[in-house]
Amino acid sequence: MQPWQLMAGARLFDLAHPMRTGMPQSPNHPPFRMVLERRHGDIVRADGGSAANELIITGGHVGTHVDALAHVSQDGLLHGETPAASVQSNRGFSTLGIDTFPPYVGRCVLLDIAAVHGTRTLAPGYEVSAEDLDLAEKAAGVSVGEGEAVLIGTGWSRNWPDGQLFTGQVNGAPGPGTGAAQWLIDRRVRLAGAESIAFECIPPGRGHAELPVHRMLLVEAGITIVETLRLDELLDSGVREFLLILNPLPIVGATGSPVRPLAIAAS
Amino acid sequence: MQPWQLMAGARLFDLAHPMRTGMPQSPNHPPFRMVLERRHGDIVRADGGSAANELIITGGHVGTHVDALAHVSQDGLLHGETPAASVQSNRGFSTLGIDTFPPYVGRCVLLDIAAVHGTRTLAPGYEVSAEDLDLAEKAAGVSVGEGEAVLIGTGWSRNWPDGQLFTGQVNGAPGPGTGAAQWLIDRRVRLAGAESIAFECIPPGRGHAELPVHRMLLVEAGITIVETLRLDELLDSGVREFLLILNPLPIVGATGSPVRPLAIAAS
Amino acid sequence: MQPWQLMAGARLFDLAHPMRTGMPQSPNHPPFRMVLERRHGDIVRADGGSAANELIITGGHVGTHVDALAHVSQDGLLHGETPAASVQSNRGFSTLGIDTFPPYVGRCVLLDIAAVHGTRTLAPGYEVSAEDLDLAEKAAGVSVGEGEAVLIGTGWSRNWPDGQLFTGQVNGAPGPGTGAAQWLIDRRVRLAGAESIAFECIPPGRGHAELPVHRMLLVEAGITIVETLRLDELLDSGVREFLLILNPLPIVGATGSPVRPLAIAAS
Amino acid sequence: MQPWQLMAGARLFDLAHPMRTGMPQSPNHPPFRMVLERRHGDIVRADGGSAANELIITGGHVGTHVDALAHVSQDGLLHGETPAASVQSNRGFSTLGIDTFPPYVGRCVLLDIAAVHGTRTLAPGYEVSAEDLDLAEKAAGVSVGEGEAVLIGTGWSRNWPDGQLFTGQVNGAPGPGTGAAQWLIDRRVRLAGAESIAFECIPPGRGHAELPVHRMLLVEAGITIVETLRLDELLDSGVREFLLILNPLPIVGATGSPVRPLAIAAS
Repeated sequence: MQPWQLMAGARLFDLAHPMRTGMPQSPNHPPFRMVLERRHGDIVRADGGSAANELIITGGHVGTHVDALAHVSQDGLLHGETPAASVQSNRGFSTLGIDTFPPYVGRCVLLDIAAVHGTRTLAPGYEVSAEDLDLAEKAAGVSVGEGEAVLIGTGWSRNWPDGQLFTGQVNGAPGPGTGAAQWLIDRRVRLAGAESIAFECIPPGRGHAELPVHRMLLVEAGITIVETLRLDELLDSGVREFLLILNPLPIVGATGSPVRPLAIAAS
Repeated sequence: MQPWQLMAGARLFDLAHPMRTGMPQSPNHPPFRMVLERRHGDIVRADGGSAANELIITGGHVGTHVDALAHVSQDGLLHGETPAASVQSNRGFSTLGIDTFPPYVGRCVLLDIAAVHGTRTLAPGYEVSAEDLDLAEKAAGVSVGEGEAVLIGTGWSRNWPDGQLFTGQVNGAPGPGTGAAQWLIDRRVRLAGAESIAFECIPPGRGHAELPVHRMLLVEAGITIVETLRLDELLDSGVREFLLILNPLPIVGATGSPVRPLAIAAS
Repeated sequence: MQPWQLMAGARLFDLAHPMRTGMPQSPNHPPFRMVLERRHGDIVRADGGSAANELIITGGHVGTHVDALAHVSQDGLLHGETPAASVQSNRGFSTLGIDTFPPYVGRCVLLDIAAVHGTRTLAPGYEVSAEDLDLAEKAAGVSVGEGEAVLIGTGWSRNWPDGQLFTGQVNGAPGPGTGAAQWLIDRRVRLAGAESIAFECIPPGRGHAELPVHRMLLVEAGITIVETLRLDELLDSGVREFLLILNPLPIVGATGSPVRPLAIAAS
Repeated sequence: MQPWQLMAGARLFDLAHPMRTGMPQSPNHPPFRMVLERRHGDIVRADGGSAANELIITGGHVGTHVDALAHVSQDGLLHGETPAASVQSNRGFSTLGIDTFPPYVGRCVLLDIAAVHGTRTLAPGYEVSAEDLDLAEKAAGVSVGEGEAVLIGTGWSRNWPDGQLFTGQVNGAPGPGTGAAQWLIDRRVRLAGAESIAFECIPPGRGHAELPVHRMLLVEAGITIVETLRLDELLDSGVREFLLILNPLPIVGATGSPVRPLAIAAS
């Protein structure tokens, strides 16, 4: 079979939220802003043609995005015991930046934790446990393989239209606890993703004061993280294993990048 | 076959240039800039953890990128006779923006025009003709299908390290002329891409004074354009048909977006 | 007397708030952000020297700032019946922009409306009336002259440390009503300023839904506005007439600019 | 005399270049860009009112600007032996930033070095010497006082319209050498300014490889620098002593800021 024949009868899912000024995002990162610079009619060539363009300001951790390993350090060290101070400069990170993450095109499993609890959307602050992951794996009849990708479904992307709720600054957000993180590490996954802003359980009123799962995955295990995924359609579809395409922009030395992940499932 | 089995034995090509401050780009668009905001050590939590992040400024037509149909107008009209003035505002374009382009995952043909002329890189200002496309198609033993993607190989991405040369402001850049554009329209392709900054033939000293191919493809035919592709590896590989993944960021109302296209070929 | 002898024994007041990421500002404008780009040590020359720099993002109506006449239109017309559509483009405004405002160095009167009401800070939503201006003028024993500057003191800058309160999005902010605006127009002042984000009375819960004073001053009368002034020290000092220096950045075609106004009073 | 009476019969000079996208600036700093965000008509209130605004991107060392002491370090130390590494973070500089420079309103002397050499504009790469300063002081019949400001006139601002020439990347720019810097230090001036991008003599082809005058003034002597001043009108006027107003934006922790300096001279 030729690769392009893959799509015959396959289903394509777009896992990114639309990006626009004012969309929900972490207050810890530069706010996204898109402004038209030239509009049609501003400059019209002799032949009647005109071109419009825009200026975009964003953080690397804004919208649906990937966290590079360089994003988090512990006691001054990045993954692989790399001293952070020695690899960061005005040119960004000379190692472990998002440009060092090879695009992932491979198998991915979606673990529907909301379904485990008989709901469409988990409560703010709910901590996804290792047992939840086990139960979701069994319910789906799939298994998470070494070197593969795992997405944790909480239904949280359904809250995207309510920015105050979605960001979880007050009420928190559901996400994996340290037990779930250890489960992922034990399975030796290549990358892990979820729907809320941080791949963490954020208790009410806590904000991002502690990020133990980031430390375990990014620093200790070298597992890349995907955040703010739009998983609602995929959850509703019943699809639980698929081809994931994750190709962040190759921004040299950045700690993260917006991304438009795609899932391709057999029909 | 399951979709993820696609990759067994397949070859993956990354068609994007790395993005960094100072990379070659059109002077008509906001210059790309990535600046670390927080570095490790700036804010250290009680548990010894620290997170770094960045601020990114870019245009939508910077680095390897996609031109949305909203990018160009002719006599005040966008594709489909849409009056540009009625759909552009501070929120961008209410139609034909890059967010309205569904990610493309499908067959793509690479037409190696440099090889037609027995060279690795075409000269600045060379105009790719319809005959060139015919010859390249025959040489490759492939055919360009309706609704599919076509990339035009000129070898120009080999000049990326020389920004002055690459941008073609002085010496021009090779690219399709109006004959080649008509060829693409006659084939009813879904999208077309190439290696230089503008999907045009840029004669020496001319700059972007006239962009007839943009008008024909974007305005008249509704064919999306991909620019500044990194095709050198693909050209050298001999691969001429493959699965192309083209998933620009869903920036609502923007006229274009950086993208990291991938090509997947049978081994 | 030589001009520089002015300062002998004079008192200098700085009327600008410090600008920093996260400071109170209108949500209608791009948020201010200052990020160090190069830090010392990033690039060290052979001689041991190093230079740090920054990237600054701001709106023109952020921090203590001046509103140019181009900022507001009524029924499509700017001041002087200028059709707005004909003078705005990617280059900004070809007329009435902040670059057309000649720096003001001249007499200014501070009218202390808070004192008129026996308080240090007026209540959110309080509408300053023409009578208030009359009373303050009498209390100070000064008179507002034609072609001069007037500042309206409400004490609101004392609320700067409380961003939620200061911006007035929920509770409103005190400021001049249409009666006060007419008073200023009748006096034929050159410019008028105050402490809150908008030179308006903002009733609780209303936000910036209506801006009648902007229309009267900027569009009808051609009177320039200064907003978010830091007047607390000046109010406390008892100084009521002084030399005002108001020199916004000459940003060509912009509708406003941050500014650092100075007041010089006889000791 | 009241302070505002100062202006009766005085002459006011604007010493700033207009700021616009594409203006000459150092390639070492973020390029200035002003983009209209909302234009009139984008959002029209029920009463027919509309407001336009903009987004501004700039460096702190762009256009006419002030260098704060934090801008340069030598062997890791800022002025006063302050270790740079200990005072720089994501919040900028905790000391010696531009916000710590009190606005200067005081006497200033303009030393016309071009006139010393019988020309209107000095040649690129010309090194202003201590003797030049002596001669200009004598020619003007003025004396530079302790704690005062000095501007060095080279006529270079006449080259502003020719960006390639003005920035001096190829041909260099005239400016003070180390002898002139020592002269300024010996006179214990408060601040010193000039017309080119860097307050240095830039030999042809050298760029900003070495900045000894910055080290001497900013690091060793604690003398603030003003760059890219527009002095042509002042030079032509014959005015050699005046009141200088230098009030950079109070950007907390920044190493510099754009500024609009004013000069007020007796008529």
